[in-house]
Amino acid sequence: MVIVLKPGISREEIEKIKLKMQSLGCSVHEVVGESRHIIGLVGDTSKIDKELISANKNVEKVVNIQEPFKKANRLIKPEGSVVEVAGRKIGCGHIGIIAGPCSVESREQIISIAKDVKTSGAGFLRGGAFKPRTSPYSFQGLREDGLKLLVEARKETGLPIVTEIMSASHLDIFEEHVDVMQVGARNMQNFELLKEVGKSKVPVLLKRGMSSSIEEFIMSAEYIMAEGNENVILCERGIRTFENYTRNTLDLSAIPAIKKLSHLPVIVDPSHAAGLAWMVEPLSKAAIAVGADGLMIEVHNDPANAKCDGQQSITPLQFTNLMHTINQLAVIENKAVSF
Amino acid sequence: MVIVLKPGISREEIEKIKLKMQSLGCSVHEVVGESRHIIGLVGDTSKIDKELISANKNVEKVVNIQEPFKKANRLIKPEGSVVEVAGRKIGCGHIGIIAGPCSVESREQIISIAKDVKTSGAGFLRGGAFKPRTSPYSFQGLREDGLKLLVEARKETGLPIVTEIMSASHLDIFEEHVDVMQVGARNMQNFELLKEVGKSKVPVLLKRGMSSSIEEFIMSAEYIMAEGNENVILCERGIRTFENYTRNTLDLSAIPAIKKLSHLPVIVDPSHAAGLAWMVEPLSKAAIAVGADGLMIEVHNDPANAKCDGQQSITPLQFTNLMHTINQLAVIENKAVSF
Amino acid sequence: MVIVLKPGISREEIEKIKLKMQSLGCSVHEVVGESRHIIGLVGDTSKIDKELISANKNVEKVVNIQEPFKKANRLIKPEGSVVEVAGRKIGCGHIGIIAGPCSVESREQIISIAKDVKTSGAGFLRGGAFKPRTSPYSFQGLREDGLKLLVEARKETGLPIVTEIMSASHLDIFEEHVDVMQVGARNMQNFELLKEVGKSKVPVLLKRGMSSSIEEFIMSAEYIMAEGNENVILCERGIRTFENYTRNTLDLSAIPAIKKLSHLPVIVDPSHAAGLAWMVEPLSKAAIAVGADGLMIEVHNDPANAKCDGQQSITPLQFTNLMHTINQLAVIENKAVSF
Amino acid sequence: MVIVLKPGISREEIEKIKLKMQSLGCSVHEVVGESRHIIGLVGDTSKIDKELISANKNVEKVVNIQEPFKKANRLIKPEGSVVEVAGRKIGCGHIGIIAGPCSVESREQIISIAKDVKTSGAGFLRGGAFKPRTSPYSFQGLREDGLKLLVEARKETGLPIVTEIMSASHLDIFEEHVDVMQVGARNMQNFELLKEVGKSKVPVLLKRGMSSSIEEFIMSAEYIMAEGNENVILCERGIRTFENYTRNTLDLSAIPAIKKLSHLPVIVDPSHAAGLAWMVEPLSKAAIAVGADGLMIEVHNDPANAKCDGQQSITPLQFTNLMHTINQLAVIENKAVSF
Repeated sequence: MVIVLKPGISREEIEKIKLKMQSLGCSVHEVVGESRHIIGLVGDTSKIDKELISANKNVEKVVNIQEPFKKANRLIKPEGSVVEVAGRKIGCGHIGIIAGPCSVESREQIISIAKDVKTSGAGFLRGGAFKPRTSPYSFQGLREDGLKLLVEARKETGLPIVTEIMSASHLDIFEEHVDVMQVGARNMQNFELLKEVGKSKVPVLLKRGMSSSIEEFIMSAEYIMAEGNENVILCERGIRTFENYTRNTLDLSAIPAIKKLSHLPVIVDPSHAAGLAWMVEPLSKAAIAVGADGLMIEVHNDPANAKCDGQQSITPLQFTNLMHTINQLAVIENKAVSF
Repeated sequence: MVIVLKPGISREEIEKIKLKMQSLGCSVHEVVGESRHIIGLVGDTSKIDKELISANKNVEKVVNIQEPFKKANRLIKPEGSVVEVAGRKIGCGHIGIIAGPCSVESREQIISIAKDVKTSGAGFLRGGAFKPRTSPYSFQGLREDGLKLLVEARKETGLPIVTEIMSASHLDIFEEHVDVMQVGARNMQNFELLKEVGKSKVPVLLKRGMSSSIEEFIMSAEYIMAEGNENVILCERGIRTFENYTRNTLDLSAIPAIKKLSHLPVIVDPSHAAGLAWMVEPLSKAAIAVGADGLMIEVHNDPANAKCDGQQSITPLQFTNLMHTINQLAVIENKAVSF
Repeated sequence: MVIVLKPGISREEIEKIKLKMQSLGCSVHEVVGESRHIIGLVGDTSKIDKELISANKNVEKVVNIQEPFKKANRLIKPEGSVVEVAGRKIGCGHIGIIAGPCSVESREQIISIAKDVKTSGAGFLRGGAFKPRTSPYSFQGLREDGLKLLVEARKETGLPIVTEIMSASHLDIFEEHVDVMQVGARNMQNFELLKEVGKSKVPVLLKRGMSSSIEEFIMSAEYIMAEGNENVILCERGIRTFENYTRNTLDLSAIPAIKKLSHLPVIVDPSHAAGLAWMVEPLSKAAIAVGADGLMIEVHNDPANAKCDGQQSITPLQFTNLMHTINQLAVIENKAVSF
Repeated sequence: MVIVLKPGISREEIEKIKLKMQSLGCSVHEVVGESRHIIGLVGDTSKIDKELISANKNVEKVVNIQEPFKKANRLIKPEGSVVEVAGRKIGCGHIGIIAGPCSVESREQIISIAKDVKTSGAGFLRGGAFKPRTSPYSFQGLREDGLKLLVEARKETGLPIVTEIMSASHLDIFEEHVDVMQVGARNMQNFELLKEVGKSKVPVLLKRGMSSSIEEFIMSAEYIMAEGNENVILCERGIRTFENYTRNTLDLSAIPAIKKLSHLPVIVDPSHAAGLAWMVEPLSKAAIAVGADGLMIEVHNDPANAKCDGQQSITPLQFTNLMHTINQLAVIENKAVSF
């Protein structure tokens, strides 16, 4: 951590700041510049609150040198992490493909799609039971009933299920039924929820918030890990930019960036990023080519009548074709799809 | 709502879409263009799911003409709403000033600041008890104990208290103690929380999410109102942009925009927007000049030792000076500060 | 084009607007809604000024249905365009690889790199002679002397040269020496320059502005094409977002989007997008996988001593390895690298 | 400047970097941390190229401590600059109001508006002769004829004229006729144009690019000043964000930020920022309240028939009312409108 002091600060004030930093367990190095004066802090600065120092009226700015995350940091585990769910691996050469409808609509729908995506090679079934919707007047999901239908689909196909948790008050029922709990983009900084899923043993799929920086994204994973749950899969799903041809802008550079900073596996959701079914295929290919550890794809047997997100869902047939190409790309990447 | 059809669509497909739209309760008008064909829908379209229509493979895009919010819509109440808390009004010419520390730290701290801001003319006391922090290793607030200290400060000063609720599981204790429940920017689309505070009678201060559009912001207020709680105050607090001289970019154009679209009162938080204490004064003045119904300002008696956000907190003395200017500006705007 | 009228507009005013639209050559269809009234325009609306209509005090908003570009529109040439330079094709299955240093520094440097990239399979040599720099105190390029060195490198290797034009006053010398004139991101809406290069016959590589929408980007190509020069290659090079781990955010969704909207070939510059040499490889692969018609890559024989952009330049050896993977991916895409 | 080295760097490599930095005229201070090693540079680093150092494979990142601008830096002139045009001052308590139509359309139009805005208290007449338009098919301005009409309007009213220069090839005619040359947002980093206007003595109004950071904005002023022309007025006109209710997002925080960093006067253009006539008044008030040194406002006598930007132009009557409020606010700010 580097503290840049304001021009004209007195020797006395400098010594005060140095003493304070030493009291926080850091050793202190002073560099006297021409127009600016800086202090370098040495030691474990990850638990020092940057804001606390910035508040000093003699401090111009504070620059972090070390990343603020510890458990999620690549330095802890340079070889990378694998998250394993029902025998399927994600990370370190294992590609996880999660497919299914935006929301669970009926027994027939979810079982039919589950069978289709399994046949094409998906390793996991997704399907929303509790749905975050911008409008209170839109379909809010089948909720508990949706979870039960997912469980039936798992029985029929053997596919582990991935579904979104929207409130800590649902944790018991999720722990009972679900293989991977998804924390959605809108809840990425719902810290009370992060803490609660962190106390669970169920793996967590954490989606990046629409306006979250990569560092904040990893810090939210750190929240979960700090409570003890280290089975976290990150998911890039598009960030909000000025461009609105696509619903969000898929930030594929985030994949190599996250892999450099953290050991956690990271997958891509091209369906929500673009919001356009015809873009799912090219973006999925790009995601695998850039190094993602998996994909989360919306598949629906009747997109035009889907209760939500039909415009971004591909059909089972399109999904089959996509899986064919994904397998080819995996070979080039020396990876294999888990199923 | 206008549906733009893809070029080359058959007459049969057009008729199918028209029938479907009529079945949703709309009357349908067709406009035959040269390269494009459009369908105009007439009737109450606020409950029609845009996505549902977009999913049709013959639809190129769907354009909303009517706003998707009903209860928050200005059309319902052209004269504007007033939210009243403990005799203090916000909206329609009444300016509410909410001031206090980022977080409650101790009995002495909160009572001392409460007295100071009351003397200078604040109408409400703010102070965080439950704190949303990017890092799990940062100070998380005094939680329940913080609420109790706020209650003591209210007893001493008579100022109603405004504080953030981070989980629906805390609703009981908030309803018992708090005058205004704040839903923070990170929880603006925590829909389960919005529904719960919507069932309460306690007024809600809803902050705009960092990457939330104005329409989404009002839709989150609609979530609360749809459950019955119409005492909603909106708060602009900066959006995330590429510019990082300030922590976020205060979007002051949002104030007149929201006033045009909605009847709800809207205030501004210059402290979190800029993240810089010295910018609070000019931004506060600009907020009142642009038409805001109030301000939410961080005031701390010892910013350099504040447990959080010290770099953006002003001192009680600076707050006194600010209030002097705010009162002058209020006169130009034909408004008055509530206290 | 759809015109949404304000609520409460009189019949007389509606008729005035309809007459005005008819006078612009459109036929007019009226749809009477409950709270809003809309007018659909049929005919060639690409030359109607949206702003002109928006300015009417009875108009709430104007929605474009048809794209505003004509010559660049995919509808004109559904099969796509090929731009051919010195026997090398870009577009429609032909991948163009443009490689070389950020700036031309010396005879030895440019010839050595040119030979290296040719050997590895590049089809074009890039190198900046006139350099746009944020600071007036940074190296501004060798200017005319740089162009001459590029010409020498072409003589030695046969590679056509691509270099940036920063002012219309340099057009003569560029037309004499250069194979492809690049218009940089910062000049994407330098309309006087666009018009001038549009009068030339030399192919133009047009880079997307950092905050340019896809539509504006294609409109800038339209400026060039409207003057007669239809040899335009588009280049996505990252957009400005809140994320600053990378210098800009590479918008790979823009590739399929542009291909849907326009027939022009579109390539990707991963070097400038990320600003990080180690990210060039994964982003290049993703670009080809998403459907780009080529790449523009910075290669330097001594990045640590490059006069500019060394941090984002890869070495000739890294480039050789990259070309190996690109060729594998091209096969999957049924494409071939031009050389 | 602080150089953060990669973990595991050898002593030999560190010494090499230190020697290189010393050869650039800096003195070097080393701070040995636990996981990172940093080097502080002392001396004039404003002419050191950050990229050059970043390119070293042992360097993780480089952090600027000192601002990269010199002539525009507030440190040079703490009391602030005044730009004077035809006896009217802008800066240091003097508010400049520039008003007029988006584009010059006819003799009658420009003279009529010029008289109106003069009567209401404007100090300068604006009007576009050369117009930057997104579409090549939109009205491009009257060009040279427009300049002549502006000159006539000046003769009639005595108001100095402000108009946009789009190409260095027009410099002669601008120097002959124009009082203030405007460099538009799209040309903010047209460095060849900046250099040319920097060689002139005519004051320059430099608009902020839509996606330009505050630092880049001031660096573009530095380009002009480095060539000798120190009469630069900065103009904030909205930045591009995800919010599209307004055309751009007016960044009013930029005003106090620029005033802290630079001594140059800075004004606000609310008309282009919002793109909505009804928002001009509240945003103008906010701009003055936040500390701007002036305003640039589009005024048209017949907005519905304006050849461009009619939707954002206010009428002379609205302008008169606005000037009344601006004068009231100026008093609170201890400033006065120049005329």
